[in-house]
Amino acid sequence: MSAKSKLSTLILTLSLVFLYAGCLAFAKQDPELKQCTHQCRVQQQYDEKQKEECVRTCEEYHREKKDRESLKEVGQDPDVEFHPGDGLSECQSRCAGLAGEVRQLCLFRCQQKWRRDYASRWEEEGKKQSKEDAEDEGEEEKHNPYVFEDKHFSTAIKTGKGRVDLLTKFTHNSDILRGIENYRLALLVASPKSFVVPNHFDANAIFVVTQGRGTLTLIHEDKRESFNIETGDIIYVRAGTPLYLINRDDDEKLFIVKLLQPINQPDHYEVFYGAGGAKPESFYETFSTEILEAALKTSRDKLEKFFDKQGKGPFLEASKEQIEAMSSHEEGSKGGGLWPFGSESKSESAFNLFRKRQPSHCNRYGQLFEVEEEEFKGLKDFDLRVSYVNITKGCMSAPFYNSRAIKIAIVVKGEGYFEMVSPPVSPKSSQEDSAGRKSGSRYQKISSRLRSDTVFVVPAGHPFVTVASRNNNLEILCFEVNIENNVRYLLAGEGNYVQQFEKEAKELAFKSKEEEVDRIFGNQDEEFFFPGPRQQRGRYYE
Amino acid sequence: MSAKSKLSTLILTLSLVFLYAGCLAFAKQDPELKQCTHQCRVQQQYDEKQKEECVRTCEEYHREKKDRESLKEVGQDPDVEFHPGDGLSECQSRCAGLAGEVRQLCLFRCQQKWRRDYASRWEEEGKKQSKEDAEDEGEEEKHNPYVFEDKHFSTAIKTGKGRVDLLTKFTHNSDILRGIENYRLALLVASPKSFVVPNHFDANAIFVVTQGRGTLTLIHEDKRESFNIETGDIIYVRAGTPLYLINRDDDEKLFIVKLLQPINQPDHYEVFYGAGGAKPESFYETFSTEILEAALKTSRDKLEKFFDKQGKGPFLEASKEQIEAMSSHEEGSKGGGLWPFGSESKSESAFNLFRKRQPSHCNRYGQLFEVEEEEFKGLKDFDLRVSYVNITKGCMSAPFYNSRAIKIAIVVKGEGYFEMVSPPVSPKSSQEDSAGRKSGSRYQKISSRLRSDTVFVVPAGHPFVTVASRNNNLEILCFEVNIENNVRYLLAGEGNYVQQFEKEAKELAFKSKEEEVDRIFGNQDEEFFFPGPRQQRGRYYE
Amino acid sequence: MSAKSKLSTLILTLSLVFLYAGCLAFAKQDPELKQCTHQCRVQQQYDEKQKEECVRTCEEYHREKKDRESLKEVGQDPDVEFHPGDGLSECQSRCAGLAGEVRQLCLFRCQQKWRRDYASRWEEEGKKQSKEDAEDEGEEEKHNPYVFEDKHFSTAIKTGKGRVDLLTKFTHNSDILRGIENYRLALLVASPKSFVVPNHFDANAIFVVTQGRGTLTLIHEDKRESFNIETGDIIYVRAGTPLYLINRDDDEKLFIVKLLQPINQPDHYEVFYGAGGAKPESFYETFSTEILEAALKTSRDKLEKFFDKQGKGPFLEASKEQIEAMSSHEEGSKGGGLWPFGSESKSESAFNLFRKRQPSHCNRYGQLFEVEEEEFKGLKDFDLRVSYVNITKGCMSAPFYNSRAIKIAIVVKGEGYFEMVSPPVSPKSSQEDSAGRKSGSRYQKISSRLRSDTVFVVPAGHPFVTVASRNNNLEILCFEVNIENNVRYLLAGEGNYVQQFEKEAKELAFKSKEEEVDRIFGNQDEEFFFPGPRQQRGRYYE
Repeated sequence: MSAKSKLSTLILTLSLVFLYAGCLAFAKQDPELKQCTHQCRVQQQYDEKQKEECVRTCEEYHREKKDRESLKEVGQDPDVEFHPGDGLSECQSRCAGLAGEVRQLCLFRCQQKWRRDYASRWEEEGKKQSKEDAEDEGEEEKHNPYVFEDKHFSTAIKTGKGRVDLLTKFTHNSDILRGIENYRLALLVASPKSFVVPNHFDANAIFVVTQGRGTLTLIHEDKRESFNIETGDIIYVRAGTPLYLINRDDDEKLFIVKLLQPINQPDHYEVFYGAGGAKPESFYETFSTEILEAALKTSRDKLEKFFDKQGKGPFLEASKEQIEAMSSHEEGSKGGGLWPFGSESKSESAFNLFRKRQPSHCNRYGQLFEVEEEEFKGLKDFDLRVSYVNITKGCMSAPFYNSRAIKIAIVVKGEGYFEMVSPPVSPKSSQEDSAGRKSGSRYQKISSRLRSDTVFVVPAGHPFVTVASRNNNLEILCFEVNIENNVRYLLAGEGNYVQQFEKEAKELAFKSKEEEVDRIFGNQDEEFFFPGPRQQRGRYYE
Repeated sequence: MSAKSKLSTLILTLSLVFLYAGCLAFAKQDPELKQCTHQCRVQQQYDEKQKEECVRTCEEYHREKKDRESLKEVGQDPDVEFHPGDGLSECQSRCAGLAGEVRQLCLFRCQQKWRRDYASRWEEEGKKQSKEDAEDEGEEEKHNPYVFEDKHFSTAIKTGKGRVDLLTKFTHNSDILRGIENYRLALLVASPKSFVVPNHFDANAIFVVTQGRGTLTLIHEDKRESFNIETGDIIYVRAGTPLYLINRDDDEKLFIVKLLQPINQPDHYEVFYGAGGAKPESFYETFSTEILEAALKTSRDKLEKFFDKQGKGPFLEASKEQIEAMSSHEEGSKGGGLWPFGSESKSESAFNLFRKRQPSHCNRYGQLFEVEEEEFKGLKDFDLRVSYVNITKGCMSAPFYNSRAIKIAIVVKGEGYFEMVSPPVSPKSSQEDSAGRKSGSRYQKISSRLRSDTVFVVPAGHPFVTVASRNNNLEILCFEVNIENNVRYLLAGEGNYVQQFEKEAKELAFKSKEEEVDRIFGNQDEEFFFPGPRQQRGRYYE
Repeated sequence: MSAKSKLSTLILTLSLVFLYAGCLAFAKQDPELKQCTHQCRVQQQYDEKQKEECVRTCEEYHREKKDRESLKEVGQDPDVEFHPGDGLSECQSRCAGLAGEVRQLCLFRCQQKWRRDYASRWEEEGKKQSKEDAEDEGEEEKHNPYVFEDKHFSTAIKTGKGRVDLLTKFTHNSDILRGIENYRLALLVASPKSFVVPNHFDANAIFVVTQGRGTLTLIHEDKRESFNIETGDIIYVRAGTPLYLINRDDDEKLFIVKLLQPINQPDHYEVFYGAGGAKPESFYETFSTEILEAALKTSRDKLEKFFDKQGKGPFLEASKEQIEAMSSHEEGSKGGGLWPFGSESKSESAFNLFRKRQPSHCNRYGQLFEVEEEEFKGLKDFDLRVSYVNITKGCMSAPFYNSRAIKIAIVVKGEGYFEMVSPPVSPKSSQEDSAGRKSGSRYQKISSRLRSDTVFVVPAGHPFVTVASRNNNLEILCFEVNIENNVRYLLAGEGNYVQQFEKEAKELAFKSKEEEVDRIFGNQDEEFFFPGPRQQRGRYYE
């Protein structure tokens, strides 16, 4: 939240600057950005940091503008989100005195701010936006052990060519997620044309490629296995298997989400680099010199020279020829596939989420892709299902719960929010809660905005719903552990579980005539994905 | 134990009263009770409370007398327990000056007191009954982490139509039961003609019906499964399965014992009510109104009205017609079966303990009914055996131990006591123990009286024995976890394990001639159930 | 380490004594030892303790000399280790003024001291041997949670005829070994012609006979199983199985290593003795007398007499006839087998490590014997492999790591040391470490001398190496848990994993031409066992 308040301060500052500056002008074409940037740099009253912020705003504006133009080409109205709202209209009124590009920049900033507050405002429907709100929200966040954001990741590795971020333990905030305390989540990003040096780790891992194209090589006991990987590929890496990796794309970064199950200690794993030398430190060098001499039958001097060469860390730059040589050239390799039409993989260690041409659930409001244990042997060891959900902008998933599975979800693209029913998570619930709930209330609503890399966990039996923002599809990668014998119970829409109750059970449970129960639970005739909250209002509701 | 001392005081008071009262007389026939009661009420020196106690004593005496008469009809000698004992003879000597019914009442109270102290006195063999005793006993109870009584249950739900009591965690008292820390035990009681509203919970569960007749409905992914349940039925409910339940009997309560294995957190589970509204709070109502509107495609007003109707809690009254409609009418349903002759169930989720016409062990001293994993698939997930033991009044089970299984037992009917061999359970054992045991002693005797709903746990490898009281059969429901490859090693009677030792092993181990070892371990020729301690005295012993 | 400083003091004293004594002379033949001993005894300036130390040194010298002679016969050069080294040459210079046997004795002591410091000095390569060193080493030991020595064993049972020592919990020193916290290790030693009385325990167990000949009897549900056991036999004892045991050898002790997996509590098990009486206390005697009377249908008096006879503890002396009678006489029993040529066992519970005539790996530098789950069903329950490694004196095992398995190793015979690569084990690493390692260093070298009964643990993924001393083969018994799908990745020698890298991966990872990488990783052409560190110096290294 402090980030947010810092942002607000900046926006105010910028707005004032623009008001004072008066007559700044930006060219309409490509030079536009250049000029904007220039104007920032010549502002006398800015210190260096402010100038940088100003330039960044120019760039964001420019990018945004481009996006909106391309959206228009596809027939999407980029202005759909300009609904008058408290914060937004107030902000916009402050832009009134401006003209031309500056006015647009001001409005853009307002809109940007507004969009950031969007999801949270939905949560706070019917409540005044006030200081107390902010405090409540802060408190709520403290008591929300199901959601993990940027601050819950720590940087395990970071070099110019790539990085690995490790999510904190799932039990970091509360004991409530002890059921998955033996799992860890990590994100790998490798720059174009980079090489990740050979390493192994004491954890079983599921890798999922969420963006980019690479080649992964696993060293097995008796053979080497290389395969080209692309968006949607799932790779099972057994604990201790040495591997190396290239991003074989010239431009695009390679993103991999890793779910790890440590072997030696329940909630901690280590990475061992065999190659390299000074940096990444090779474990060879940890042995006594005498041992190394005897083991490699090589003199101390030669060894020292040999192991001291590499010093650029675990992510290295590779030449075009090296990339080409290391890319898998097996026939039938998946190199040619295009998302979501990955071609067939022959490996037992890898599987493409989108290979199944037909999603498990699909309508105009969203798509669900799933890989079951049966399809991909590697998942069996984990008792796991990997799924990928793509909720169309402004739409939502049906409320449902998993009977046994615990869902670990990470947002890949887009934004939105989720709501979940939970037993009270803290003995000391926020004032708002205790006021808003009847005493003795069993459940608490857990909700959170979702942005790229937000991780959220839905325990077994807990009903929940996910909603995409108005602006972007919401794409979520899910790991569902304890999947064996899991049943997904739909709570609304086609196939909802109330429809299976007997007449008498319906009437007793809801104290209503069967027809009324059937009407309420029969109105929604879509399955699994529905139009979202705002979209429906005033249109479909009886 | 404070209850005990209160009792002692009362008995003394009563005895004195009777001595003073001198010539009270009670009629010999049915009016007897009436007169006794009358006499209590007219005692001038009694306050109201004392009068009530006196009346209660009259009633107990009367009931006891009836019991003894019926025992005599069956050929049992109700007086067999009148062995002179320290406390008893002292007490009885105080009755000496009395005559007729009053004397009998006095003697009855002595005997009653004596019986209550029975199990505990055995433990304290050879020690004076003193204040210190009471303290020791108190301490002992503190150090007995294997036994759970009323005070260890908390009320999860309680309404006019039913209740659910939840046993504390098995590790509540001590770490010694960590092996079953992932299990919880709960008791459900539903009033006649009641309906338990639809709910699910994040735990796998085994339900065992210990009394009554009901119909349980499980909602599976694609079908509804209803079956009539009755005493002895075992139902496996997978985590997250929505269910509802009726007690379809007009008069009798329905009792269900539940063993639960939580999914999300090792030792905690939650119940989710989907139906209902205000009370039980429906989880539907926890979602934002917008979400609910969109999900159910129904306007806010209608939803509010709909979900606000139900307010009577999870146990509801059902009409005769509703009960009739919800009872299972499948052919071959178990509705017609009578305990212990339950008819065959066709469901894979349910199994009747007594369907097997032949108990695993049966003689005049007791019966053992068992359901193995192989017979009932549902138990496989739990690695569990359910068994039901019925020990004839005054009899005992053979001492034995389970090689791998940990037994969780709950007394269903009757009373008695159990004794178990355990390593010392507390680093700071009571003084009594350290005095009564040689230094370096390995074992401690754990013992406890057993009454309805007493729960006791017998870890693997721990020898134990259960004894029924003189007055009632002792009926115990047992869950044995870790049952795979478990072996029951009998320590006495037919088939005891010493008989399998080689001659030399017998002689070395017991430092006795083989014949003597064989005589000692061959005297008892019954199998699994024996006549109990007192009953045998002076009759069979060599 | 205090032992070490005591030793140094002694050596100095001895050296000085020899210098002063001047002209002591020792006969060259067998009388040599006698005379040496005599000289010690007549030294005026020695107190009794010093005299004893002196005698012991004579004996050691004598034994050493014999060993060296036999080494020469086998063609081994016993003097190969006399490389000049700091401590050694300094020490040796002090012997300069001496002559003949005395000089040899002095030199021997220097060498002995030098050898003792061998492993530790290697660690401390390049550092001054100073007081600070000793402190560092002490600290290092504190931070070495992977190694367990004498002080980590506690005596569970000890009588004149045998003993059982129990290793502390693996998590005693640190959380780092939580992966095996459910295992316990115990050592049993039974004197010749002894009988271990019947007992059971609440743990699954793997017994491995490391020395001696006995007969083990297991009591199963319906039969008794006896089999003769000898060095290399592995026996699976299910939790709760009653057993008794004899050492049927007239002279040799019987040594059994037990790996236990407790059932009731994760890290604790109990032994229950059914036979016996006062000592070992029989669990029968823990029951109330009434219960015992009823269960065994035997009067109190007889029971008291019966259970009071045995008072000599769990290890008893057995007569020759009893031993003979209890030895297994089944045809095909393994009684006649000689290590390592144990004959075939017919039992499903037992298996001989050396039955497989061919070790998995074997060359002149060492042998590896392994029993896989597939070969011996009993190991399946444990997900375990048992292996036995015999490293030739002065040789070493290849550095490797297990991909999934955690190795629990116990030294059976000989001495040596091991080195392992580990992530830093303590947040507060010793000064030495922080000085000796680049900041941000990922790994720490764990090393320890190995002697009989040293236990060390190698977690999955951790590279390590074991080296035998110059004087004795090093024999190690290993339990590898989590063996399913485990792969052993060799880091040097024939089949090392770097050889499987692609050309480009080699070049990028090591920043060297492929030929250079291949040369470094191709020099060593032995597989799995290599000549040890010192032995190679100056001979093979390029």
